[in-house]
Amino acid sequence: MSIKTAIGYTTREDIFVRERNLAKDILGKLDFVDMIYFTATGEVPSEPVKRMTNAIIVTATDHGLTPSAISARMTYLGAPESLQGAVAAGLLGAGNHFLGTMQNAAQLLQSEIGSLTQDDPPAAFAERARELARAYRQARRIIPGVGHPIHIDGDPRVPVLHRIAADNGFDGKHWSLLAAIEEAVKAEFGKYLPVNAAGAVGATVSDMGLAPVWARAFALIGRSAGLLAHLMDEQRAPLGQKIWDLLLAQDDSADRRGLRG
Amino acid sequence: MSIKTAIGYTTREDIFVRERNLAKDILGKLDFVDMIYFTATGEVPSEPVKRMTNAIIVTATDHGLTPSAISARMTYLGAPESLQGAVAAGLLGAGNHFLGTMQNAAQLLQSEIGSLTQDDPPAAFAERARELARAYRQARRIIPGVGHPIHIDGDPRVPVLHRIAADNGFDGKHWSLLAAIEEAVKAEFGKYLPVNAAGAVGATVSDMGLAPVWARAFALIGRSAGLLAHLMDEQRAPLGQKIWDLLLAQDDSADRRGLRG
Amino acid sequence: MSIKTAIGYTTREDIFVRERNLAKDILGKLDFVDMIYFTATGEVPSEPVKRMTNAIIVTATDHGLTPSAISARMTYLGAPESLQGAVAAGLLGAGNHFLGTMQNAAQLLQSEIGSLTQDDPPAAFAERARELARAYRQARRIIPGVGHPIHIDGDPRVPVLHRIAADNGFDGKHWSLLAAIEEAVKAEFGKYLPVNAAGAVGATVSDMGLAPVWARAFALIGRSAGLLAHLMDEQRAPLGQKIWDLLLAQDDSADRRGLRG
Amino acid sequence: MSIKTAIGYTTREDIFVRERNLAKDILGKLDFVDMIYFTATGEVPSEPVKRMTNAIIVTATDHGLTPSAISARMTYLGAPESLQGAVAAGLLGAGNHFLGTMQNAAQLLQSEIGSLTQDDPPAAFAERARELARAYRQARRIIPGVGHPIHIDGDPRVPVLHRIAADNGFDGKHWSLLAAIEEAVKAEFGKYLPVNAAGAVGATVSDMGLAPVWARAFALIGRSAGLLAHLMDEQRAPLGQKIWDLLLAQDDSADRRGLRG
Repeated sequence: MSIKTAIGYTTREDIFVRERNLAKDILGKLDFVDMIYFTATGEVPSEPVKRMTNAIIVTATDHGLTPSAISARMTYLGAPESLQGAVAAGLLGAGNHFLGTMQNAAQLLQSEIGSLTQDDPPAAFAERARELARAYRQARRIIPGVGHPIHIDGDPRVPVLHRIAADNGFDGKHWSLLAAIEEAVKAEFGKYLPVNAAGAVGATVSDMGLAPVWARAFALIGRSAGLLAHLMDEQRAPLGQKIWDLLLAQDDSADRRGLRG
Repeated sequence: MSIKTAIGYTTREDIFVRERNLAKDILGKLDFVDMIYFTATGEVPSEPVKRMTNAIIVTATDHGLTPSAISARMTYLGAPESLQGAVAAGLLGAGNHFLGTMQNAAQLLQSEIGSLTQDDPPAAFAERARELARAYRQARRIIPGVGHPIHIDGDPRVPVLHRIAADNGFDGKHWSLLAAIEEAVKAEFGKYLPVNAAGAVGATVSDMGLAPVWARAFALIGRSAGLLAHLMDEQRAPLGQKIWDLLLAQDDSADRRGLRG
Repeated sequence: MSIKTAIGYTTREDIFVRERNLAKDILGKLDFVDMIYFTATGEVPSEPVKRMTNAIIVTATDHGLTPSAISARMTYLGAPESLQGAVAAGLLGAGNHFLGTMQNAAQLLQSEIGSLTQDDPPAAFAERARELARAYRQARRIIPGVGHPIHIDGDPRVPVLHRIAADNGFDGKHWSLLAAIEEAVKAEFGKYLPVNAAGAVGATVSDMGLAPVWARAFALIGRSAGLLAHLMDEQRAPLGQKIWDLLLAQDDSADRRGLRG
Repeated sequence: MSIKTAIGYTTREDIFVRERNLAKDILGKLDFVDMIYFTATGEVPSEPVKRMTNAIIVTATDHGLTPSAISARMTYLGAPESLQGAVAAGLLGAGNHFLGTMQNAAQLLQSEIGSLTQDDPPAAFAERARELARAYRQARRIIPGVGHPIHIDGDPRVPVLHRIAADNGFDGKHWSLLAAIEEAVKAEFGKYLPVNAAGAVGATVSDMGLAPVWARAFALIGRSAGLLAHLMDEQRAPLGQKIWDLLLAQDDSADRRGLRG
């Protein structure tokens, strides 16, 4: 039985990743975004792919006290000896409701696009989107990629990601379908659920020709950096205990018992 | 009680990271390595810092079937519904023995450097290193940053990282101390324990003026990408079950009972 | 906004769990299995429920080098400073393929049982099972609760769990449906896929009147103890490095390069 | 190379744990607390050991919105598809500051007890405790096992655990040393830092003759059940989103920007 992976291996003198010598032919020659692709596929990405990838990962990095940041800080409060444990706790929340939605949106678009091509008329996209919106409405399911609890008038990241996608050649049929879904939802549900960042990333990844799992991968890589920023901040200016105190202070059970009397 | 972090926050129209508008002033303008620093410090790194950081993170990304990759693949075998769970399982092994050693090496160098400056004569570094080697020998402790189980004649990543550090202005007093430690260990322990990649990263991060925690942060960010490459590979060409079968086949208890009879 | 949970709270003098005083009225009065139910529901279980629960959790505890044990030991190898990290890594594999299947089997049985009652004739169960087997066969889906890769002639835990269920009053309609599914699969798929431990636990939990999530909860509680046994064993007689060495030795890429020459 | 663990293995017909047949000789015969010991050591515990163990694990199970419960609920909010991920996120916080302190207290007591025996006079314990208190004071270190942020007049769990330890024969020299430490701290630090639950568990585990790691193991097993209770509660009556909203509402940065205007 041979257990081996094409990703890499080590000898006494050398380390190989995708059959390329890490020390001699990778270090100093590939940057990290190159290396993400190279480790996963053995190919170095083109400049447009790199620009797009940077924008996607930057989108996922961080934006304040999200549930995953709260979880990481709470974990660090109890276990400061394990930075990796706090990062892991934060990443575990990157699931089907937050961040992982980027993958879900890509999956939806790639499975619904069917035989549509960029050359099809807008009406064809509209028709497909209408069917989808009706089916989701009947099944009372949430459509990934549209709607945002805070950015109710539009997610500010979407037009910028769309522009970067257009500039780099990734504004294709999946973006068209996503835009059609936004329209169909307005008609079908009677309310404006604007395309959100997960939808934008899902469409872009799809128009880059990548499988949906890449969207979750980019989200996890970006968020790992965001969580580490939170944990460094927690070391410098701890919030964890304050968060806990604030939550305990909301529990009037304790009050009844005279804790704060 | 105010619970807020300087890292960022969201309004109905906008998202701010370090007081800069994510959509208008970050996306498409900062790349991911910029964003790592910007999220953590509010500053955009210089070009030499970016080049060095890319080399460090690329070093940590991956090199085959490491324990963290095995753990991630085993986790995916049981729970394919949670990609983030498999990544988290892999990162949890980035501790004091593997990968986390980058932080430990930086800590050692920064705490031992004392008042030494780059202008001090080699003899001063040699003296400090000798004291350290003796103290660790007496306490029967392992010195982080030197020695490697496979690369017994020298870790191939070290000279390359050293050269990139020199090219970008980060070959300073911590690198000098690290080299002196390698020499002192030879004299004191009577064996050659070459500087390893953890030591090289620890010295570089220290000569970049960063706290030791940055070394573990870079390692975790890089490794998250490596683990995702393994998990995509696992989806395409599963190894997990084979690994398990191989391990079970080693257990002659099963043999005694006739499982493989 | 009130943030409180019915589970418990702390005052300066006392700790309350489900409104009962932990020190005065719980410690020394409830054992751990009582406490599992009491914390989750506020009720102390009956003796039959306790006996059954003990059997279920013991079933899930451990049986050697499973993927979750391998993952925990690999994690400990890299990060011995964090026992909780190694346990977490092991639990992360308790998903839809291993252990978590107990919940999936319970879900299947509870959603398929429909209006069937224990008084219905065997033919009614057989009919329902036949429909289910056909539907799964057409959809090429695996039916949770039947079949085992090693125990191809029957899972040894199943008859014992069935007897304990019968002894304690939990051999009800879900067990009947499960047995009917085993039969229907034989007829429909033409092969013997015996009821497995996940199916037995799923049926039992369902006949205890518990929601499917309890099955995964019991599995996780039991497995946490099994993983801790592995980690104590790893501290005493390390296997982690041997496992890694064995896997590396299978990779003939390394051989080609002369590592073992 | 033989990779095997004494813990257990599987054959086509049977499963063995510690060389005992799981189906025939364990299920229905050992309860879960028996199984915890049996899996880890191959021995079934005595009745006093079981009573004591139940009290320890029940102590660790839960007491409301602790940081680990908050982390588990935040994780579930983002990734409801992975119950095991939310449990893992909660357990990752069982470290050197919370819960893991049980192990730290046991370690302190077992390393400081030296040659003291239960027959030594109180003055001998007092002397040892005084030295320890002085050393920790000089090093400005926190002594694990004494002091509590909320239970400033005494931790209610301690007298009960002490009584159960006495009733079962585990009120030995480690409990004597712990009591002496409480006294010495009063004299040396000039303030009352009462023995806390971590100290009580640490002393008890030590007087049971168990290694310190058992204390953390008991804590993790108990807390796994507590976390599952929280997650079932979260499914029934979600708190996660409310917690997040409450925290966001504290951030006056958002206010400045008009989010809540």
